[in-house]
Amino acid sequence: MGVEAVDLSDARGRVLAEAVAAPEAAPAFARATMDGYAVRAVDTFGATPGMPQYLALVGEVPMGAAPERPVHPGEALRLATGGMLPPGADAVVMLEYTAEHPDRSLEVRRAVAPGENLLQPGEDVEAGAVLFSGGRRLRSQDVGLLAALGVAAPKVHRRPRVAVLSSGDELVPLTAGPGPGQVRDSNAWMVAAQVAEAACLPLPVGGLLPDDFAAIRGALARALTEADLILISGGSSVGTRDLTLKAIQDLPGAEILAHGVAIRPGKPTILADVGGKPLLGLPGHPASAAVVMEVLGKPLLARLAGLSEPPPPWAGTVTATLSRNLAGAGGREDFVRVKLRREGDTLFADPVLGPSGLLSPMVKSDGLVMIPLGTEGLNRDETVTVRLFAG
Amino acid sequence: MGVEAVDLSDARGRVLAEAVAAPEAAPAFARATMDGYAVRAVDTFGATPGMPQYLALVGEVPMGAAPERPVHPGEALRLATGGMLPPGADAVVMLEYTAEHPDRSLEVRRAVAPGENLLQPGEDVEAGAVLFSGGRRLRSQDVGLLAALGVAAPKVHRRPRVAVLSSGDELVPLTAGPGPGQVRDSNAWMVAAQVAEAACLPLPVGGLLPDDFAAIRGALARALTEADLILISGGSSVGTRDLTLKAIQDLPGAEILAHGVAIRPGKPTILADVGGKPLLGLPGHPASAAVVMEVLGKPLLARLAGLSEPPPPWAGTVTATLSRNLAGAGGREDFVRVKLRREGDTLFADPVLGPSGLLSPMVKSDGLVMIPLGTEGLNRDETVTVRLFAG
Repeated sequence: MGVEAVDLSDARGRVLAEAVAAPEAAPAFARATMDGYAVRAVDTFGATPGMPQYLALVGEVPMGAAPERPVHPGEALRLATGGMLPPGADAVVMLEYTAEHPDRSLEVRRAVAPGENLLQPGEDVEAGAVLFSGGRRLRSQDVGLLAALGVAAPKVHRRPRVAVLSSGDELVPLTAGPGPGQVRDSNAWMVAAQVAEAACLPLPVGGLLPDDFAAIRGALARALTEADLILISGGSSVGTRDLTLKAIQDLPGAEILAHGVAIRPGKPTILADVGGKPLLGLPGHPASAAVVMEVLGKPLLARLAGLSEPPPPWAGTVTATLSRNLAGAGGREDFVRVKLRREGDTLFADPVLGPSGLLSPMVKSDGLVMIPLGTEGLNRDETVTVRLFAG
Repeated sequence: MGVEAVDLSDARGRVLAEAVAAPEAAPAFARATMDGYAVRAVDTFGATPGMPQYLALVGEVPMGAAPERPVHPGEALRLATGGMLPPGADAVVMLEYTAEHPDRSLEVRRAVAPGENLLQPGEDVEAGAVLFSGGRRLRSQDVGLLAALGVAAPKVHRRPRVAVLSSGDELVPLTAGPGPGQVRDSNAWMVAAQVAEAACLPLPVGGLLPDDFAAIRGALARALTEADLILISGGSSVGTRDLTLKAIQDLPGAEILAHGVAIRPGKPTILADVGGKPLLGLPGHPASAAVVMEVLGKPLLARLAGLSEPPPPWAGTVTATLSRNLAGAGGREDFVRVKLRREGDTLFADPVLGPSGLLSPMVKSDGLVMIPLGTEGLNRDETVTVRLFAG
């Protein structure tokens, strides 16, 4: 992906294209963290409510400006939270432990240590320090720190543009009334939403492709000129799958990396490199397409988006107790939809079964549990990790 | 909030304003889930590889159209996955268990039960069934189901518009070079990003307010005409806080619901109802503002956005082992920033300490651990729930 500068108001969720160093220190000057008085800490030593110290109140630090005078021994300057510490002072006495007297003397009833109730220059960030590495996805607080340091237009990776295509003679568009034997395309809408979830840009969900070699090849060739990644959900029938595969193979520079992957649902997945652009052929069954997007599509999108690291293992997962035995798929990683249910202190994962041609089990589920390859299955009461669907 | 119809391509993440019922059944007709042959199951009974049954292959079901003829006893029609089951047939024999012979007879080597390798009409969704209740945030698979049923423009709640204001004589805008005693406003940028995280619309981060009653009151009055919720992060000094409070109280219909809340950080929070619109006065310290947004602001935004239910307890949380003792705040709920660290099988939460005037501890942290009100604190090795920051 290329690099673009993004306005800070749109920076959250974007991925930094390069490391960002602090152009200056934050704070740039010592600041009060409490309302009170700037003093020399040594002048307060020994102060107690019974034996207060008395200082000369010589003025006030204006907010947002340099102090007009320093603090000399025995002196104090009033200042508010965020105010700039005057030269000579090294601590702030909180308002609560003082009293101003009519003779302009300040009664101090508690000693402060040097540095107390202050932020030191550079305490938040030193000038030149690396704030963020490239490949980091910016969070709200990151945006705040960039604002504090005046980084108004961070350089981020351009968001991958993703073409989402569907093919099948039986498919009609969203707004059509399907005739006998026809169904509306739902995969493209669901997959485009998953692309957006992964912080990538789905190209508009467009025309449907018939089960025709020239039509599919032409649409793929056009998509390659516009998109950084192509997702095509083919029909699930053998004939349609073969057509899609042949159309991909016929594209310049195409290399099929995998045709069929050892997961369930999702076996008829195609992975291809088309002249340097990735192409993912999704199964036609909606639950299969959704699972392949979660398991293979989203990590691919994250990589393409420039994220330097996979999400941490605790992000988007939860551990739960499986509420029934589940047999494995034998020779494939099996992804079972589950609904979560809390009962007392226990979180149960209830498998939601149903053919992969249905959407409603996906709609009823909260996430997926994986039965590892080469295992017999999972037992009731076993602790499992649930990958949560995006909320 | 009002209600608006949203294009399906923008529906993910939006909150349904009303329940959605299925306008039709899905699927509308019995469909094959495998490539194979439509048959009467009874005609296959007893078929084995050693003792196959033979049926008359009488044609093919075209994809996306009604079958041209029914299946009579002893007959089979070829059909592909997704194809419409012809009248008379009640099951599909998978391709793998058949052979077509030159005399147009079909050898069937495995019996099928009625309904096998089929989706029944209405098996995914019955016509008229309630798909979703109002107040549900739409996920990718929900969008897919709406597409399948032709719901092209679901009615959703308008997204709350949120004004984000900052006041303080010391603040300068993002692009200014701060002079002595001045700092750039960072809270507005961070808080606006948190608003976007909560799927609401932050109004553009605008002009900064001086510590001046008339200026603050005027800006709040203007914001009330544009926004559904007002967030104002005041200075943290007593004088500034009082100004903000007075400016709020002076607005028509203003009622201060709380001035000061029992959380740390975040004590100087203001909650107000201004003629029916909520106003949240955030502390000036950035970490305090961030925590108040997480703990109070986001639930308020979710409610305003029309979500009917709070997020489930497992969403955005993780359990971890606290790596050191933490003393409580005595009389306040204490929110401690933590960084997560996996060591072997254990996920540790390492407290990230630092004054609430700093942003970098927020940037280094993964989430918050709450020390409940009225407890002494939390012990090292205790299991804690971490509320994760948005990624």
